[in-house]
Amino acid sequence: MNATDATIGEIGEGATLARIFPILPSSRRTTLGPGDDCAIVTVPDGRVPVTTDLMIEGPDFRIGLSRGYDIGWKACATNLADIAAMGATPTALVVGLAAPAATTVRFVEDIARGFHDAATALAPGCGVVGGDLSNAPLVMLAVTALGEFDGVEPVTRSGASIGNVVAVAGPLGNAKRGLDILFDRAISPDGSIDPVAVAEAWASHPVDVAAQLRPEPPIAAGRAAALAGATAMLDVSDGLVLDARRIATASGVAIDFDLSAVGDIDALTGGEDHAMLACFPLNAKLPAEFRVVGRVAPGDGVMVDGVPFDSRGGWDPFADYSATSSQ
Amino acid sequence: MNATDATIGEIGEGATLARIFPILPSSRRTTLGPGDDCAIVTVPDGRVPVTTDLMIEGPDFRIGLSRGYDIGWKACATNLADIAAMGATPTALVVGLAAPAATTVRFVEDIARGFHDAATALAPGCGVVGGDLSNAPLVMLAVTALGEFDGVEPVTRSGASIGNVVAVAGPLGNAKRGLDILFDRAISPDGSIDPVAVAEAWASHPVDVAAQLRPEPPIAAGRAAALAGATAMLDVSDGLVLDARRIATASGVAIDFDLSAVGDIDALTGGEDHAMLACFPLNAKLPAEFRVVGRVAPGDGVMVDGVPFDSRGGWDPFADYSATSSQ
Repeated sequence: MNATDATIGEIGEGATLARIFPILPSSRRTTLGPGDDCAIVTVPDGRVPVTTDLMIEGPDFRIGLSRGYDIGWKACATNLADIAAMGATPTALVVGLAAPAATTVRFVEDIARGFHDAATALAPGCGVVGGDLSNAPLVMLAVTALGEFDGVEPVTRSGASIGNVVAVAGPLGNAKRGLDILFDRAISPDGSIDPVAVAEAWASHPVDVAAQLRPEPPIAAGRAAALAGATAMLDVSDGLVLDARRIATASGVAIDFDLSAVGDIDALTGGEDHAMLACFPLNAKLPAEFRVVGRVAPGDGVMVDGVPFDSRGGWDPFADYSATSSQ
Repeated sequence: MNATDATIGEIGEGATLARIFPILPSSRRTTLGPGDDCAIVTVPDGRVPVTTDLMIEGPDFRIGLSRGYDIGWKACATNLADIAAMGATPTALVVGLAAPAATTVRFVEDIARGFHDAATALAPGCGVVGGDLSNAPLVMLAVTALGEFDGVEPVTRSGASIGNVVAVAGPLGNAKRGLDILFDRAISPDGSIDPVAVAEAWASHPVDVAAQLRPEPPIAAGRAAALAGATAMLDVSDGLVLDARRIATASGVAIDFDLSAVGDIDALTGGEDHAMLACFPLNAKLPAEFRVVGRVAPGDGVMVDGVPFDSRGGWDPFADYSATSSQ
């Protein structure tokens, strides 16, 4: 057996952890890292934002479409985005990984490299401070992210006011197009994945495929928005319209988008963009990452060019998951 | 269809969350609860201990041996124990739950009730501040716990000194006996579970079965140990000897147990007790929950009555998991 082909079942939990710890990104804000009952994270201003997400083989990713590296990158990036969407800076992650015993150590190392590179690229100083490794018939990641506010007030979903401008940082619609391309070209009706077609999709549509498999949410834009006086913000994970409706409902206002500024229907309803959607006072100086896409209006719900837009949008892991369709 | 028999696939993610939020315990230390991109937890002294654990159907529990209530209770209790083992007080949990679409809403509500009752009984004031719900072919829980030190210094594994006394809070060996009883009596060779035998095991061995399925780690003993000057501490999850070896290695000492004080072989090597194992200066006044079981000695590793004890102990989720055996 080649050492690089060893499985995590063969070498066991302890040896697998010893292989991945050196790869994982380290945190600037920890006084005690992995290896004790807990890690200890410092929280300078006494308030810690915390968010958790599951990423499950099947509904959240397919092995073959995603490499281990991509799975680690996306699990990291999407949790960083939830911290950024509060106006906070991500500081620390804990990661639970469950995988079959037959999983190669190399695959798990690739996941760790994805975490390292995503944290380094998107939120330097944020690291993995602890975790758990277990045995399951499919690959599952459970990521919890912590952050710090460092002098800004948290930006929730409920502070939007009539007359605010609505702005977005990061592309919209690419992740949906990437998923459609991958499902159309690389997944057969029986659910099997064609690796050549995946490589061709990367080559022909690199921006869209990367947005789906290896997203780069604008993490620094979250804190920049808070510093610029954002009144409400969230991470666009379920599609712009559905997520905007969450701000509208929490704030008791309507949000009216300009279609020409948003782009197209994919940008309005496609999920997994992990853009930052924020509302700002009319006189705020918007951070460079943001572009204006609409305004906060009286009423409720979401409008596009002044007309109520009631497409369902979003994604339910139970109702909407199919092994062979991206819809 | 009776409303109580509805499945989470039928009612979807949003409606399921709406059913369980009112059941979950609430945290005294949150300024923003579930429903935004993050929850916000207050950390008075600027240091937050964080721990995460996966509980997976199969290696960690069997539906039929455990009810939903037991699964929630144990997932909560074991994470609280990791916070307590630092000398900290648990303040907040985030919970990821994945389950098949055919899971009943009632089962998920029972999990939430288990969290509620465990947090209320073991760590009043600690609550669930956020989470995620997703779709998987088996039930998986990912729990992350946060805490606060509130005037004590963190107790790690590395501070034990020669001459310290070694003490334990909480029973040892019961959880292992409970698991053996359940596997011997309630699981057939084909892996199927006999619900009548489970009920009979509860009736005939309530202490051992409860220790396995619904453990009550001595959470307050963790902080009490820190206040009493504990030099090292951990939560006994993999068996007393294996966990004591972790303190011995981290501290560069040996630990010598008195068998008469520990009890028997199950107490030395059985896992999942979630007792607190701590070292104290000889002149410390031990908190009432602790009993002396040995001493810190020169050398390395673990001894029992002065003789090196090298049983492997512990449990590896890959090497040691079998569908039909508790070993």
